[in-house]
Amino acid sequence: MKKICVVITARPSYSRIKSLLTAINQNPNLELQLILGASALLERYGSVIDTIKADGFQPTEIIHMVIEGGDLSTSAKSTGLGIIELSTAFNNLKPDIVLTVADRFETIATAIAASYSNIPLAHVQGGEISGSIDEKVRHAVSKLSDIHFVATKKSKERLIKMGESIDSVFLTGCPSIDIVKTVIENSLFKDFNPFDSYGGVGNKFDPKSGYIVVLQHPVTTEYADTSYQIGQTLSAIQQLNQPTFWFWPNVDAGSDKISKSIRTYRENKKLENVYFLKNVSPEDFIKLLINSKCLVGNSSAGIRECSYIGTPVVNIGNRQIGREKGLNVIDSKYQSKQILYSVEKQISHGNFAQETLYGDGSAGINISNLLEEKSPSINKKLSY
Amino acid sequence: MKKICVVITARPSYSRIKSLLTAINQNPNLELQLILGASALLERYGSVIDTIKADGFQPTEIIHMVIEGGDLSTSAKSTGLGIIELSTAFNNLKPDIVLTVADRFETIATAIAASYSNIPLAHVQGGEISGSIDEKVRHAVSKLSDIHFVATKKSKERLIKMGESIDSVFLTGCPSIDIVKTVIENSLFKDFNPFDSYGGVGNKFDPKSGYIVVLQHPVTTEYADTSYQIGQTLSAIQQLNQPTFWFWPNVDAGSDKISKSIRTYRENKKLENVYFLKNVSPEDFIKLLINSKCLVGNSSAGIRECSYIGTPVVNIGNRQIGREKGLNVIDSKYQSKQILYSVEKQISHGNFAQETLYGDGSAGINISNLLEEKSPSINKKLSY
Amino acid sequence: MKKICVVITARPSYSRIKSLLTAINQNPNLELQLILGASALLERYGSVIDTIKADGFQPTEIIHMVIEGGDLSTSAKSTGLGIIELSTAFNNLKPDIVLTVADRFETIATAIAASYSNIPLAHVQGGEISGSIDEKVRHAVSKLSDIHFVATKKSKERLIKMGESIDSVFLTGCPSIDIVKTVIENSLFKDFNPFDSYGGVGNKFDPKSGYIVVLQHPVTTEYADTSYQIGQTLSAIQQLNQPTFWFWPNVDAGSDKISKSIRTYRENKKLENVYFLKNVSPEDFIKLLINSKCLVGNSSAGIRECSYIGTPVVNIGNRQIGREKGLNVIDSKYQSKQILYSVEKQISHGNFAQETLYGDGSAGINISNLLEEKSPSINKKLSY
Amino acid sequence: MKKICVVITARPSYSRIKSLLTAINQNPNLELQLILGASALLERYGSVIDTIKADGFQPTEIIHMVIEGGDLSTSAKSTGLGIIELSTAFNNLKPDIVLTVADRFETIATAIAASYSNIPLAHVQGGEISGSIDEKVRHAVSKLSDIHFVATKKSKERLIKMGESIDSVFLTGCPSIDIVKTVIENSLFKDFNPFDSYGGVGNKFDPKSGYIVVLQHPVTTEYADTSYQIGQTLSAIQQLNQPTFWFWPNVDAGSDKISKSIRTYRENKKLENVYFLKNVSPEDFIKLLINSKCLVGNSSAGIRECSYIGTPVVNIGNRQIGREKGLNVIDSKYQSKQILYSVEKQISHGNFAQETLYGDGSAGINISNLLEEKSPSINKKLSY
Repeated sequence: MKKICVVITARPSYSRIKSLLTAINQNPNLELQLILGASALLERYGSVIDTIKADGFQPTEIIHMVIEGGDLSTSAKSTGLGIIELSTAFNNLKPDIVLTVADRFETIATAIAASYSNIPLAHVQGGEISGSIDEKVRHAVSKLSDIHFVATKKSKERLIKMGESIDSVFLTGCPSIDIVKTVIENSLFKDFNPFDSYGGVGNKFDPKSGYIVVLQHPVTTEYADTSYQIGQTLSAIQQLNQPTFWFWPNVDAGSDKISKSIRTYRENKKLENVYFLKNVSPEDFIKLLINSKCLVGNSSAGIRECSYIGTPVVNIGNRQIGREKGLNVIDSKYQSKQILYSVEKQISHGNFAQETLYGDGSAGINISNLLEEKSPSINKKLSY
Repeated sequence: MKKICVVITARPSYSRIKSLLTAINQNPNLELQLILGASALLERYGSVIDTIKADGFQPTEIIHMVIEGGDLSTSAKSTGLGIIELSTAFNNLKPDIVLTVADRFETIATAIAASYSNIPLAHVQGGEISGSIDEKVRHAVSKLSDIHFVATKKSKERLIKMGESIDSVFLTGCPSIDIVKTVIENSLFKDFNPFDSYGGVGNKFDPKSGYIVVLQHPVTTEYADTSYQIGQTLSAIQQLNQPTFWFWPNVDAGSDKISKSIRTYRENKKLENVYFLKNVSPEDFIKLLINSKCLVGNSSAGIRECSYIGTPVVNIGNRQIGREKGLNVIDSKYQSKQILYSVEKQISHGNFAQETLYGDGSAGINISNLLEEKSPSINKKLSY
Repeated sequence: MKKICVVITARPSYSRIKSLLTAINQNPNLELQLILGASALLERYGSVIDTIKADGFQPTEIIHMVIEGGDLSTSAKSTGLGIIELSTAFNNLKPDIVLTVADRFETIATAIAASYSNIPLAHVQGGEISGSIDEKVRHAVSKLSDIHFVATKKSKERLIKMGESIDSVFLTGCPSIDIVKTVIENSLFKDFNPFDSYGGVGNKFDPKSGYIVVLQHPVTTEYADTSYQIGQTLSAIQQLNQPTFWFWPNVDAGSDKISKSIRTYRENKKLENVYFLKNVSPEDFIKLLINSKCLVGNSSAGIRECSYIGTPVVNIGNRQIGREKGLNVIDSKYQSKQILYSVEKQISHGNFAQETLYGDGSAGINISNLLEEKSPSINKKLSY
Repeated sequence: MKKICVVITARPSYSRIKSLLTAINQNPNLELQLILGASALLERYGSVIDTIKADGFQPTEIIHMVIEGGDLSTSAKSTGLGIIELSTAFNNLKPDIVLTVADRFETIATAIAASYSNIPLAHVQGGEISGSIDEKVRHAVSKLSDIHFVATKKSKERLIKMGESIDSVFLTGCPSIDIVKTVIENSLFKDFNPFDSYGGVGNKFDPKSGYIVVLQHPVTTEYADTSYQIGQTLSAIQQLNQPTFWFWPNVDAGSDKISKSIRTYRENKKLENVYFLKNVSPEDFIKLLINSKCLVGNSSAGIRECSYIGTPVVNIGNRQIGREKGLNVIDSKYQSKQILYSVEKQISHGNFAQETLYGDGSAGINISNLLEEKSPSINKKLSY
């Protein structure tokens, strides 16, 4: 039986890979080894470990690797610690393939640990373009990877241009769309009330009357501007004054600054219409997006999941710069006035039509079939 | 004054970057910060620290990061430790640019520590093709780098194809050629006798009567075959039975296996004509190559420096696969018979004509001028 | 000039060592090197870095070493990371003496890094007895220390019994008392209102009408019982229903469990009379104690500072077991009924008389004089 | 079944604990978990892993933790890395008791990892006195340990004086004597010829004609004097000019200096009568001592095993200062003349009578019985 070791290290990664975990578990020739680490374990960033267990997956290893501090040096040091710990885990588990997701520091820690352990590396979400340090890290991970499962046609073309062998790049769609499809097809989004299921802080409201969702992460390469940037969004949302769900940011250099700015606003009795959430299950997150009037911030969910759902999005700043975007997205600068104007425009437009830019909902099964079928070599070469 | 932090972590890296260190020191607008780490500090791999000081350079920081063991997991773990230690150093030194060389685990540790510290990264020797894990790591480092100083035209073309901005890739030649040029132009290679200057083990001989040089490193992605591979070379050299200088291997997964195989041969009273060296100064290494009848093994010096010198080379196995090679190189499989035949053929051919494939000897000054002139941004993007 | 490197790694450590920092700074023959690390840097545990700077001290080095997770393995791993980072710092700073405080994992990390770096180690607060892992760690640190500055007569006797040379143990008093003395002598405690100065959560009240203070940390050797233990205190305070300041716990295995229990209570609309604080300056913390009707929990401040102030204390469970206690302390089991009964008894008793069990307020100056005068050898020996 | 995790991290530790491993394996109520790490894995320090496997023990985990460099900072950093790695191992293996041996940096790494993991810690060879950093570390480890198996009466008395509970200290004898007893009782030492079994360098001689043995390790707290100190011994042995087996030093700050001094001597064609060994099996080491005319240096084998055998010993310098010594030991300063004189005196005296100062050969079985019987608590307290 082929052992597939999937490393999940952040809240959003689980949502985006869940359909693949299910597909691996259902494939009789594949054995799932699930490593949970980094912020996926931390309650204050919205631990997903309980969600994962409730969904029927059993973590094979638990790896703490986040060095507290949330500044630039701690991201680097956490990467270093992650490599040390993951190479121990790979040595114990001896997987046939290691699979890593997206473009974060834990992603490249996984990639390096697997590469130097001579274990073939599979990468999901390669070939895309964005801003911040993620852009560099994503392509570096592609260069360490032996097989690529990409979300879009352009991503495939880019990886091949970058010199990845055409035999190693597969357009599977993004598994994050799979879960959206399931929720929509089964009409699971109706009657959803996040107040019933999740703790949070702030004033409650009736979600059926409509709300917006805010998800804004720090841009690590613009670390010094973090407080200014979040300040513009806070000001816009304060002026908008509509019922709002706001998610705390990911663990990254700058996330402490964002949290601090939010707390200062709250202490000044502002944002009375906003309810702050830490973590919701992947399905519930999709339901929240489906019922939302507009998603505001710089989350890739706005680009990815929302293009399939049709939810209007106001995408702020440089974090998603260069990404392929559907018609549902309006870009805005870090400027409260422009943000406010764009959100109001999107709300008045209402939902957009479904686009399958990032997949048609069958990525998990596509990837698991390829993992079963292919035996990537670790001896890759630039194709030109 | 612009602070340029050069990280040197291995014996061969110093030779290859020395002319650049000199050029930075001589540039009134640049300040050199020199970090020495990893095997550059270890006596048993040929510590270069004394050589470096004797050459007039003062290390700014000394960083131990090699975890002993020399197997696959220790390379990964050393990378992790290196990131932790280097990010501390970068935080202390606050360089304007970090410069990293080639394609080893310390190279990517440097690249990751600099990237997550938001410091622009310069890379020397990107865009080349080879075998082993180095191939993956080299291109991953390119993807993390903000400015590239490449050795060959094809390397430049490859990086641009890979999506690096045309404004960030500079054909400077390889600084390893600079030192060769100096030695040749000043006829420094005459009357060189390594026995006078360097300790070593084995029987001495008269170097003026001619000798061959062996330099064979482990190929980490063929870790399990290491003992077999070195055995074929040992057998060929034993049969050739000519005066030989043999260098101990680099610190890498597999180097302990090579050392063990060599020692076993020696204990069995074989290799009586071979003298084993650990480390020689960059200049003396070049002199040794110039006076050599043939270089045998898988060192990139055979491809790089020897193409300019014209020394005949027998290149064994996959480590240099894909590299641009001059007429002076014959490739051989891991097969004692073929190795022996090729060495004899090369010896009878004698020296080849000079080629400037890897530079014309002005790389150091070219790179230091560019470091002075350019201010690379950390916000790079794939060019397509 | 003698370089004294003081390592501060937690909120309470700064309060307890501040008078010594001042005394070192005022001694013309001593140079202060101040390393801040671990939870002293983390906002969510009450970062003291801003307080320290406001007090006129400049950190020489900042060291992140806390691996997030807050379970048993992360304490061990944070110790390991701390040793790696601190040995780099000591190597850079080359202090003549390293000074470490108390009994936490960062304390022993400091002790090991200094010992293996051949730097004499001074320890403050050795020779005391308590519960939890702290008890083991405190005595292990004493065994690595070359000079001891102790708070009580019995502590001195114990260290000498333990085989520490009589010439190396000095009864200086605890510097934590110095600050208490200053606050009392200058009547600084009047008109203190923490709501004006510190953010926090919960309902405000008039502090002049009297309040209690709760400080309860996890006992790592009773990790599994943490939720139960804090539950008993929560229940008692809920029933007591008096104005209360409650501090979030230290970073330790179990602190996440405590935080979670508190949050659950709050979400259930309980503890309406409680205001939650993260961090206050050392002086303000003392003012808070002076004006308090009773301190509840397991903080050593109840044993130490409060014995000098005379504030009544209810000390819960095993964390302070074995400590020398003044008349102001009543011990209680982890039992809401007994806790409630004891608090009510203490409130009705009112303030106790001053005791100088832990010092008379001159410890900082005593210690700095000894640091100036003594040159401890690193070659210590058991005295019997 | 009670899981006993024994951590072996150095060549000499295995010899000294082997009889205990056998006894644990033979006890039906105990399960042996064997962790091998640090220099026990490194060929150049005499890897014992092959010996251990040949003896029928299967390592449960292999842990690399030695950071190359061999200076003061790398000992500290290796301790830190060891804690990180060992806490992962303990978390995986979940032993009921962890057992650590002696007084090295890996010993305290084991002790800290176990303590913060809430696993009871057993320590062998506590309560002894010596020089160097070992003295501090040994007692610090005792303070972290929950049960003590000591070699001598005085060691037991000292631990109890140090405040260890009388119920936790057991005089079992040192397991290093067990193997000596077996070798002597079975007359295994006759006809032993180390040249047949072990590789090494130097000129061979007939061991039956008598020889001396040299074992001198660096004293880390006298790091700066290392080259001088070994120089005195080298000079004495050169003048003595008798057949000699010399062991390379342990991995410690200073061991590279010793190796370098030895190599320089050898290159100068000195020490022609000396054969250098890296590692021999525990039994063969005992045979070597039994047949030796004199043991020279600072190994604790001179104090411990040789007191039982009766081999004359010249003990140099401060490493073993304070140890209980038998009549077979003469102490000498670091002075070639005194060393030479003392060795000649010991050779002319010949063998001494057997002493059971460090045990009567039943320690392994004693300790395994106690491990079966006792359930040490992690909540220890100073006894006074």
